[in-house]
Amino acid sequence: MGTAGKTITCQAAIAWEKNSISIEEVQVEPPKAGEVRIKMVSSGICGSDDHVLKGELPMNFPLIPGHEGAGIVETVGDGVSSVKPGDKVLTLIVPQCRECDACLHSKGNFCDKQDVLPCSGTMLDGTCRFSCKGQKVYHSFRTSTFTEYTVVPEIAVVKIDDAAPMDKVCLIGCGVPTGYGAAVNSAKVTPGSTCVVFGLGGVGSAVVLGCKASGASRIIGVDINEKKFPWARALGVTDCLNPKKLKKPVHEVVMEMTGVGADFAFEVIGHTETMLAAWNSCNYSYGVCLIIGLAPLDSQLCLEASKIVSGKTLKGVCLGDYKTRDCIPQLVTDYLQNKINIDPLITHQLPFDKLHKALELYHTGKTVRCVLLF
Amino acid sequence: MGTAGKTITCQAAIAWEKNSISIEEVQVEPPKAGEVRIKMVSSGICGSDDHVLKGELPMNFPLIPGHEGAGIVETVGDGVSSVKPGDKVLTLIVPQCRECDACLHSKGNFCDKQDVLPCSGTMLDGTCRFSCKGQKVYHSFRTSTFTEYTVVPEIAVVKIDDAAPMDKVCLIGCGVPTGYGAAVNSAKVTPGSTCVVFGLGGVGSAVVLGCKASGASRIIGVDINEKKFPWARALGVTDCLNPKKLKKPVHEVVMEMTGVGADFAFEVIGHTETMLAAWNSCNYSYGVCLIIGLAPLDSQLCLEASKIVSGKTLKGVCLGDYKTRDCIPQLVTDYLQNKINIDPLITHQLPFDKLHKALELYHTGKTVRCVLLF
Repeated sequence: MGTAGKTITCQAAIAWEKNSISIEEVQVEPPKAGEVRIKMVSSGICGSDDHVLKGELPMNFPLIPGHEGAGIVETVGDGVSSVKPGDKVLTLIVPQCRECDACLHSKGNFCDKQDVLPCSGTMLDGTCRFSCKGQKVYHSFRTSTFTEYTVVPEIAVVKIDDAAPMDKVCLIGCGVPTGYGAAVNSAKVTPGSTCVVFGLGGVGSAVVLGCKASGASRIIGVDINEKKFPWARALGVTDCLNPKKLKKPVHEVVMEMTGVGADFAFEVIGHTETMLAAWNSCNYSYGVCLIIGLAPLDSQLCLEASKIVSGKTLKGVCLGDYKTRDCIPQLVTDYLQNKINIDPLITHQLPFDKLHKALELYHTGKTVRCVLLF
Repeated sequence: MGTAGKTITCQAAIAWEKNSISIEEVQVEPPKAGEVRIKMVSSGICGSDDHVLKGELPMNFPLIPGHEGAGIVETVGDGVSSVKPGDKVLTLIVPQCRECDACLHSKGNFCDKQDVLPCSGTMLDGTCRFSCKGQKVYHSFRTSTFTEYTVVPEIAVVKIDDAAPMDKVCLIGCGVPTGYGAAVNSAKVTPGSTCVVFGLGGVGSAVVLGCKASGASRIIGVDINEKKFPWARALGVTDCLNPKKLKKPVHEVVMEMTGVGADFAFEVIGHTETMLAAWNSCNYSYGVCLIIGLAPLDSQLCLEASKIVSGKTLKGVCLGDYKTRDCIPQLVTDYLQNKINIDPLITHQLPFDKLHKALELYHTGKTVRCVLLF
């Protein structure tokens, strides 16, 4: 505990402004009351981080990005009782305060204390724990995992099984529950059903895992990057479609392939065009369209109003509708017990100092998930 | 059975073109195979009929409007087995063929044989059973109930309890399942929840009945016609809002009244503006917005895309998601057993020849439901 109560100097990635990220030496203050300082072990790179880096969300710069992290508690602030130093933990982009309306409601999980929409970039008290060259550095999403050490509120961290392999389970902090949960928990995909998944990255692949686990008999995967198709087929996708190579709109092709439209359509990209394609791919009477991707802030999803009434459902899903601290540890245990296999989602692992290489893999679509290792 | 196999001459309302309706002497042919000729006893006037009369749906004129009917089977065509002469029946705007994909799917009810979207105005074989002054007259929605006699396909008619009061139960053919079912069957309104209902006509009032029966603790009713407020309060509405008298958008008022937004919002008007207000009145994490109203054909419902992901649900509902022939007879029985009280929905009853008076009551909002009696 040589670092307890002291500021730690370590390496972290700082996004100075949009499209400008570098690894720097930063200072990480000790956790205040209700906070937890974590030594990171691994972090995934998720689409929301890419939104941050591209400046597509209104964030305060400079900031330390990353939210899909696994680490070990270094120290805790006053009053922290759910984790202790030495615990293996995951960071949570959607916290669970257990006090707000959403947390107290049986069906809610979008905790009032989340810091995604909108993003303040601070801890709950409005201040920051990071600095670099004397300058304040903001947090992102109450997490910031592209750093050797981070500080997060207790409500945004959860203890997991001691046996968890820390180079992999970071994905269970966000991508896996977001995708897998959307299929098994939100949509409750039914045996024998037809699913279509728009976007075959990390979260989309987790959707495929969930559809497969739920007994879907046909899983149509849609992506403009055909490099992802072999991985997708290995996970359970039965038909791969590249909209750029089709002669008609992808929803028309899905309609022709299925005759009646999909039982379940998942949008995991965050574009209104693909959201509309997902909606139009659903059966008009009982189809359910799940919106998982985060759309640009000012964009509008416009639906043909007269056709809603025939019975379709559009549902937004955040973190698979899981109450995060309650449910995510069980997903880790399920992984340890071979009930969910997340290994195929991790196509690459790179040391943290290869961050730019990892981002390149992400941008060129050469990876499902690349995990950074500290 | 003096009329069996013969063309019947009787009185019927004919919409000659939009905004032009008159009662005429018509000829009603005998039912062909798979068809049923019904002596009408009563018919409600529903919003969809008004869409027809105003020419807001692409229909073939001249036609006989009306779909929410109760009657007694006069004769049946070859092969009809589910009803027989003398049976009390309801007509069904959404048939149940029990053969199409939607009928065979556990969650579907928007039968392929429906004739609303789009409307052919014919029987299933493409021909019509009505004529007037030698001219072919089209059906509407496979029903046409503004007539002393009608012919409908067997799949669009269902036998009900012999004890049913025929001057009232016509509402259970459409308005009651559409509204009540949206609350109890589609939304599954929860005890203690907050509901908001946009539109307090017949269907909206049936929604209120369903919310109340499900134990909602607060039911906010929204209408621009304050004449409906006393009826709405009697049914269970706790707060009445007239958007025209508010200083800010109605969804903002609902947000302020509830603090967190509604658990369930119902749109029972068919305007994209009120659909959007209903959506925006819902809790952002767990709110469910049910679209019951039929919007104009070319209209678009545009949602702020980035806010979908926090967890809201938008669901279209047709006939309360009930499979009509399977479920509607039970609603009649429930009414007879005092489990649902539809009586307060029927504020007026008029003889058929007072059709214009009944339409005037509808247009001026002086009625919840006015039932025509034959």
